[in-house]
Amino acid sequence: MKLSDIGEFGLIERLAAIVGPAKHDDVIVGIGDDAAVWRSGDEYLIATTDTMVEGVHFLAGAPWEDIGWKAMAVNVSDIAAMGGWPRYALVTLCLPPDTDIQAIEQLYDGLNTYARMCAIRVIGGDTVRANNVTITVTVIGRAEQLEGEPLLLRRDAAKPGDVIAVSGMLGDSAAGLRRLREGAPPSDELASRHLRPTARLAEGVVAVQTGLRCGIDVSDGLLQDIGHICKRSNIGAVLNAADIPISDELRLAYPGDALRLACTGGEDYELVLIGAADLIQATEDELGEGALTIIGEIVKDYDRRVRVIDDAGKEMRFERPGWDAFR
Amino acid sequence: MKLSDIGEFGLIERLAAIVGPAKHDDVIVGIGDDAAVWRSGDEYLIATTDTMVEGVHFLAGAPWEDIGWKAMAVNVSDIAAMGGWPRYALVTLCLPPDTDIQAIEQLYDGLNTYARMCAIRVIGGDTVRANNVTITVTVIGRAEQLEGEPLLLRRDAAKPGDVIAVSGMLGDSAAGLRRLREGAPPSDELASRHLRPTARLAEGVVAVQTGLRCGIDVSDGLLQDIGHICKRSNIGAVLNAADIPISDELRLAYPGDALRLACTGGEDYELVLIGAADLIQATEDELGEGALTIIGEIVKDYDRRVRVIDDAGKEMRFERPGWDAFR
Repeated sequence: MKLSDIGEFGLIERLAAIVGPAKHDDVIVGIGDDAAVWRSGDEYLIATTDTMVEGVHFLAGAPWEDIGWKAMAVNVSDIAAMGGWPRYALVTLCLPPDTDIQAIEQLYDGLNTYARMCAIRVIGGDTVRANNVTITVTVIGRAEQLEGEPLLLRRDAAKPGDVIAVSGMLGDSAAGLRRLREGAPPSDELASRHLRPTARLAEGVVAVQTGLRCGIDVSDGLLQDIGHICKRSNIGAVLNAADIPISDELRLAYPGDALRLACTGGEDYELVLIGAADLIQATEDELGEGALTIIGEIVKDYDRRVRVIDDAGKEMRFERPGWDAFR
Repeated sequence: MKLSDIGEFGLIERLAAIVGPAKHDDVIVGIGDDAAVWRSGDEYLIATTDTMVEGVHFLAGAPWEDIGWKAMAVNVSDIAAMGGWPRYALVTLCLPPDTDIQAIEQLYDGLNTYARMCAIRVIGGDTVRANNVTITVTVIGRAEQLEGEPLLLRRDAAKPGDVIAVSGMLGDSAAGLRRLREGAPPSDELASRHLRPTARLAEGVVAVQTGLRCGIDVSDGLLQDIGHICKRSNIGAVLNAADIPISDELRLAYPGDALRLACTGGEDYELVLIGAADLIQATEDELGEGALTIIGEIVKDYDRRVRVIDDAGKEMRFERPGWDAFR
């Protein structure tokens, strides 16, 4: 059997089975969430790692600074999706020996620029030879605490009756990638949303401080990411198509395809926050009006599916819910 | 200018310059040692990351379990080289979609087997598509403490008059790689030293507890690795060729080449420990007779070079001191 037969999430289930369930008291969150969490002395630490491969996660010819920026940002987004603060990073560069030094320095500049914006310090890493440029970043951070307990946004904490909210706009990144493929310059507004995403750090921390306990970032695609929550929380989700936030730029650029891009495009690095309506409201009050959009609700549904409903109340179908690394 | 012009260590210097020196009080050791160390609450944490690329760090066709084992062991060795304990790991797998599932499970089994032997728990990671199999492991651990200060083996702590000791035997791994290339089976004794290295965890911890403060693991090659200590400590090193520990298997397999393999072969994951003669002796007393071999001494030498001296007191020359990823 090939990896492409079971896909990324089938693989992760098998790998988690080899490691076995976390029995260690100090492990709060193991394999299967946006990041791992464990107790270390009097702190709760969070760690995540994400890799970007040339030709898979970025196009050859993309600006090197942007590649570095994004490699850091996607990791920070995983920390944001736990409601935590990032602090340190390790950076591994796989590089062909004939790579131009200036290009590598630009990549590292972009990476370090975004790290500094988030008060992250690069403290180590590895540099190895490879045929394709590959960047792996590990970010280590810490969780907020209340009375000695960590405050976290987990994937397994959604309950029927919870509302589903999302920060910002969805689909711009996927639209930006399409614009780049059509020849748009990196300065194009949608393209820049794809090349230089930013993580919703403040939003995540405010959410846990306000009392929210469930969330995920939109990296693979809204439907797929909420699907992870459904599986881990053993519930279903209903989204209202008309409520999904779509930017004017996206509507203008791809009017016939905007909803599909918003639902399945991924890489927006917005936060999905899930909880009681009053906690979602309190979080938006803290963040400012318009920071969050309510797009649906959690339902008791042991199919553990995400449904998107149109204005007529009819379920919409999409060819695929989002990105799977191996399919 | 190409990466191959400045090599791995030229690149690391440039990347460290972009990040800038560690001003953050909580960072104890940043870029340029075997692992990074920082204070986190009442603990001192250690983190390292190492990557293995198909065709560069392992041969296509090597047993998958061995590849996983080694990917974990080389990281644990970096923690050992700081004198610390490993605790958690993140594992990133870059895989072609047509990879056989069973192969990936074998790889993860090997990785998890060695992790468990070291009381390490795999708590997360990433899985991405790529053309070549690449495994990146990050290990996070903690340092021993004395009166609130971390006890560490650093690269920048060698002083003139210190003696240089090494654990185990050198050159077996490089000889094992050659045996594999010559068609030997993985069960060959030298081959298995290459395929399934083990880290010197206990040795590192005993060393810091006994009072040693300088060390490195032999990953790139003895001369190159001691060269890192010379540069970081601003001293020189003199090694006596006759004292370098070489196994009977290696002498038998490659009699004419044993010393060169021991000096420049790398991947033995033995520990080099450097300090006052009485502390080296005290460490060996703890570890058991024969655990360490004294191979030379640190000298005041602002050339910051490693010299190997033969029986006649003449300096020996080697074509290259060890592995450079990009040369």
